[in-house]
Amino acid sequence: MNINASRLENFFTEMSKIGKIGETGTNRPAHSPDEKKAFELASSWMKQAGMTTRIDNFGNLIGRLEGTNPDLPVLMVGSHLDSQPYGGRFDGVAGVLCAIECAMTIHEKGLKPERTLEIISFADEEGWRFNKGLFGSRGILGRLEEGELQRADANGITREQALKDFGCDIAKFKESRYKKGSIYCYLELHIEQGPVLDIQEKSIAVVSGISGPIWLTVKLKGMAGHAGSVPMPMRKDALVGASEIIIALNEIANQVPGNPTVGTCGTIKVFPASRNIIPEEVEFTLDLRDIDLERRNRYEKQLLDKIDEISKKHGLSYEISEDWKSEPRYCADWIKDIIRNNCEKIGLENTPELMSGPFHDAMAISYACDYGMIFVRCKDGISHNPLEYSSAEDLAIGAEVLYGSILDIFKIKN
Amino acid sequence: MNINASRLENFFTEMSKIGKIGETGTNRPAHSPDEKKAFELASSWMKQAGMTTRIDNFGNLIGRLEGTNPDLPVLMVGSHLDSQPYGGRFDGVAGVLCAIECAMTIHEKGLKPERTLEIISFADEEGWRFNKGLFGSRGILGRLEEGELQRADANGITREQALKDFGCDIAKFKESRYKKGSIYCYLELHIEQGPVLDIQEKSIAVVSGISGPIWLTVKLKGMAGHAGSVPMPMRKDALVGASEIIIALNEIANQVPGNPTVGTCGTIKVFPASRNIIPEEVEFTLDLRDIDLERRNRYEKQLLDKIDEISKKHGLSYEISEDWKSEPRYCADWIKDIIRNNCEKIGLENTPELMSGPFHDAMAISYACDYGMIFVRCKDGISHNPLEYSSAEDLAIGAEVLYGSILDIFKIKN
Repeated sequence: MNINASRLENFFTEMSKIGKIGETGTNRPAHSPDEKKAFELASSWMKQAGMTTRIDNFGNLIGRLEGTNPDLPVLMVGSHLDSQPYGGRFDGVAGVLCAIECAMTIHEKGLKPERTLEIISFADEEGWRFNKGLFGSRGILGRLEEGELQRADANGITREQALKDFGCDIAKFKESRYKKGSIYCYLELHIEQGPVLDIQEKSIAVVSGISGPIWLTVKLKGMAGHAGSVPMPMRKDALVGASEIIIALNEIANQVPGNPTVGTCGTIKVFPASRNIIPEEVEFTLDLRDIDLERRNRYEKQLLDKIDEISKKHGLSYEISEDWKSEPRYCADWIKDIIRNNCEKIGLENTPELMSGPFHDAMAISYACDYGMIFVRCKDGISHNPLEYSSAEDLAIGAEVLYGSILDIFKIKN
Repeated sequence: MNINASRLENFFTEMSKIGKIGETGTNRPAHSPDEKKAFELASSWMKQAGMTTRIDNFGNLIGRLEGTNPDLPVLMVGSHLDSQPYGGRFDGVAGVLCAIECAMTIHEKGLKPERTLEIISFADEEGWRFNKGLFGSRGILGRLEEGELQRADANGITREQALKDFGCDIAKFKESRYKKGSIYCYLELHIEQGPVLDIQEKSIAVVSGISGPIWLTVKLKGMAGHAGSVPMPMRKDALVGASEIIIALNEIANQVPGNPTVGTCGTIKVFPASRNIIPEEVEFTLDLRDIDLERRNRYEKQLLDKIDEISKKHGLSYEISEDWKSEPRYCADWIKDIIRNNCEKIGLENTPELMSGPFHDAMAISYACDYGMIFVRCKDGISHNPLEYSSAEDLAIGAEVLYGSILDIFKIKN
């Protein structure tokens, strides 16, 4: 192995102390004093790796290993150090710390790449604080939306204020943007956040792309009535309708066994929510994802038809709001090849190729350049939870593959 | 008509002013100053009808029209004057005011029945204040349960304190109990609280009985996971399981078209309730009612089998708690006949016979004597809501049938 596995493990140990909750949890909100401390710690390691560091006006931490040919577009490698409020030690952190370990190894070996390497910890990937994520990665590409800075957190602090408190100058956003063509490509290592690698007993996967989710909120309206006195045939029970729609989504996502399509209802609210009143209104969210855009669109159509059919059957009216819809973003084949080659080089056979269901900063960066991602196995697929766990061995293997991939990309001269 | 419809309508107008909310709503909690005012108003009318009145130690208002033969067990007619917190003007009130109108008519006509007539407004039928209803009707039969007086309302006031504030002496409960055999039979007029009469365009129904509800709380536990990253076949989605159970209950209750069986899920809670997390835990309530006990028990078994089968299919564990289970209570055939005869006498044809889904004080009193009930049409089946509405015409028809039924029962000498 080229990288130093025990040093890498120590990075995780040290980083996990910042914003620690319980034995294994992390609460490190975006733009918070704890994220600043995490940046300071990561920055100290970046400097040991010969990098210069800065925090830009979006609140991103950027370490730069200057290449011998500063005219070449940079190789960007990154992820994020902010966490879920009741999160783990690896989500995002893995990508930043493995990248730093790669830079340390490059520095130690005295390599002098022509192309500049940048390691970036993107601001507010998670998005829970202001209910909108991928902030830093969208920011550097000029992809922020109208009114984003006015979004407030649970304490009434706006994004604008939080950035100011963090030391950012929102008047200078433009200076922190990356010019078109200035990023050669982007690499991100991330824990899988799903159970596939754990079940297949594989350390890492090559990511095929990030699936495009559709997020819908469905509101059904029927008629309330006493649970004891309205005969079944006269009912307009909004919860019976909602239940049929939830099952319909499940069947749609399952219709071709083995396909990566996923469909989920994660929240449901009933009104008036009394045990002896027939539900009058039910509001629930639907999440449909697929790496194949044509198929996802076809399934969406099936779902909308089902909502209409089921509502009519039960005498319900419905409203559907589309809260999010993004297209799948595919990893570049040439980067997937490089990653797979580097897996083979260290003896990993039949490395699986996985779709990413969750978003990552890579999704935002994919609009500026080619990208590739490496997934690291996480125990039982648990993430966004203090129980989240990836072994030091798997993380070292991931870092080694990332290191080899970085060096291979350095070999490309254009 | 024997009864005075315009006087009856005026009773409703005057009574609706006490605890009035909005244009048509009522908030008259059990044992409250507003209930006391309602008792005073009802009591003043009872006195005009030649009755003596008292409030017993359970907080029941009792008006007594002394019969010429005080050895005969009393004919009890009643309902309640407490309301839901966001309730209407007719639930309970209809039974008390129509009974008072009957007593007024008897008094005006100078009738001197041998049997004593008692009109009772039972304390805390609704049960929301202390989360346990039918208080007064269970109280007079010695059917209160251990610890009931220590139940507190939302402001921390116990039933014991509320009764004391109302002027009741809990040390004298025994004096307020009715001896075995002292009630000849019980009549209750009530709004239907369901849509059947409105849809069938009928003013009133003869009640067949009060169905016995089973109340279950079901908790399903699966496994959380990111909605984007756990492949469908690996999921243990508690909400998909819950949805299938809700539909199963609906199908069980619907299996024989035209049967009075009803099944409802009125509340559902999901954990962790995030739109992109697979539901790990779902807790929901089930309500199953039938007038036929054997059938209800058979359907309960079907439901429990389904819960087991569905949970196994989705890899879920489950817990079921039985929160309430009571047997159906049938109206006496001889009283149903009297009520039906009195419907025919005033020209009502094909009066429907309906099961009562909701409980009523009659359910408690049914353990002491035969009982009968008259349902009055309520618009759109809406109840427990300020929109609750029964027309003055329908209420007058109900009162007239009640009056005739009371006189018919007076004719029975034993």
